[in-house]
Amino acid sequence: MQNYKLTLEYDGTHFSGWQIQGKAVRTVQGEIQKACTKIFGKKLTVIGSGRTDAGVHAKAQVANINVQTKLSEESLRAALNAHLPDDIAVHKIEKVSKDFHAQFSARSKTYRYTVYNGRARSALWRQFSAHYPYKVNLSRMKKEAKGLVGKHDFRSFQASDAARKEADTVRVLKRLAIRKTLDFITIDIEADGFLYKMVRNIVGTLLYCGSGKLDEGSMKKILLEKDRNAAGKTAPACGLCLLEVKY
Amino acid sequence: MQNYKLTLEYDGTHFSGWQIQGKAVRTVQGEIQKACTKIFGKKLTVIGSGRTDAGVHAKAQVANINVQTKLSEESLRAALNAHLPDDIAVHKIEKVSKDFHAQFSARSKTYRYTVYNGRARSALWRQFSAHYPYKVNLSRMKKEAKGLVGKHDFRSFQASDAARKEADTVRVLKRLAIRKTLDFITIDIEADGFLYKMVRNIVGTLLYCGSGKLDEGSMKKILLEKDRNAAGKTAPACGLCLLEVKY
Repeated sequence: MQNYKLTLEYDGTHFSGWQIQGKAVRTVQGEIQKACTKIFGKKLTVIGSGRTDAGVHAKAQVANINVQTKLSEESLRAALNAHLPDDIAVHKIEKVSKDFHAQFSARSKTYRYTVYNGRARSALWRQFSAHYPYKVNLSRMKKEAKGLVGKHDFRSFQASDAARKEADTVRVLKRLAIRKTLDFITIDIEADGFLYKMVRNIVGTLLYCGSGKLDEGSMKKILLEKDRNAAGKTAPACGLCLLEVKY
Repeated sequence: MQNYKLTLEYDGTHFSGWQIQGKAVRTVQGEIQKACTKIFGKKLTVIGSGRTDAGVHAKAQVANINVQTKLSEESLRAALNAHLPDDIAVHKIEKVSKDFHAQFSARSKTYRYTVYNGRARSALWRQFSAHYPYKVNLSRMKKEAKGLVGKHDFRSFQASDAARKEADTVRVLKRLAIRKTLDFITIDIEADGFLYKMVRNIVGTLLYCGSGKLDEGSMKKILLEKDRNAAGKTAPACGLCLLEVKY
């Protein structure tokens, strides 16, 4: 058996997220496993670096599979791309050691959130950004964001959905970069791990800071309250994209 | 009656182009006219700067309508966006003089063609770029492109479809800019007017020049031959976007 690391891109618009949930639901993991079954003639388990929610995209999600094959990495990639639907693409396949595990070996992940800040909604970017038409003070957002960088208990930014709550809510947020180009605001967040909906809750709250719905210094306070109700609205899934997983 | 200039964005993926073609076919012009009927309670004609083909996008298509209304430009825009499907958006509405005609008053148009030049196909960009996986010599492409700038007979780049052939095939190509950023090649072309499929035929031929399928100096020769068969393949519609119309 050989362990292969796969680097994957997908348009999350028409998926119910990464994780397999039964036959009736279209998922990224499900589609990749189906393609593998066609190529290898048997069922494989595709291990992802983590779940992404319905509507969330990936520029470079990482997964691994263990399989015995005579195909070269190049041929394997071509075979997978030929069998996958056009909203999933495999960009890289590499041989890795037995102990590589896409989820447990990951050291950090980077997500990018894209906000479309124009007055009217966007037709071309509707599936790849969230529309926020209000005036945003960027330097205020950046100032508030600084309070999040470092090792903190991010309980306030964990989704209230009981089923996905984690006991240990301490994470190390390594980088948070906010940029504005024309009408687009991008928020890149790198951390050693993320709680469920953490990025979208941080973005929603940062936008409230930027538009003045929350006072200066709110981010620090919300973090200390350790209560989801203290933070802002969850930003929509379609603005979120998994950019990179580091090992 | 007041004449209004509309600046429109659309994702062409699910449209059979700009122009109305009967009820069963979904077109951009048709959808805007439907929205106008709902708002004004009567049928209006929406005049576009020109047709775009099925699958072709627009960042800033221009159209005009003549109508009597008490709505402000701002309210009119909001009403249209509320009634339009989410793959069309109105970004600007301006009062213009009676003689403004979106098609006949246009002085130049700029199209952008986006080529995805990575090895494997792209999932996120599949509807907004054409995949060309071959090695491309960019400086060679730029050199060949120079031969197209200026006033020329572009007959060689006119579609062979008899129904859309024009007698006068002389156009002034004002600017042709080729850039590469990461795996994307963008080709911006500005002209006083375009023949049917002219941009896509130029792009297809430029890619042949860049990948070495056509020899150095081919562009000049093809232009002089005034024969569609001399040029390269038509590049796919999904890579094309109408960027700007100047008046």
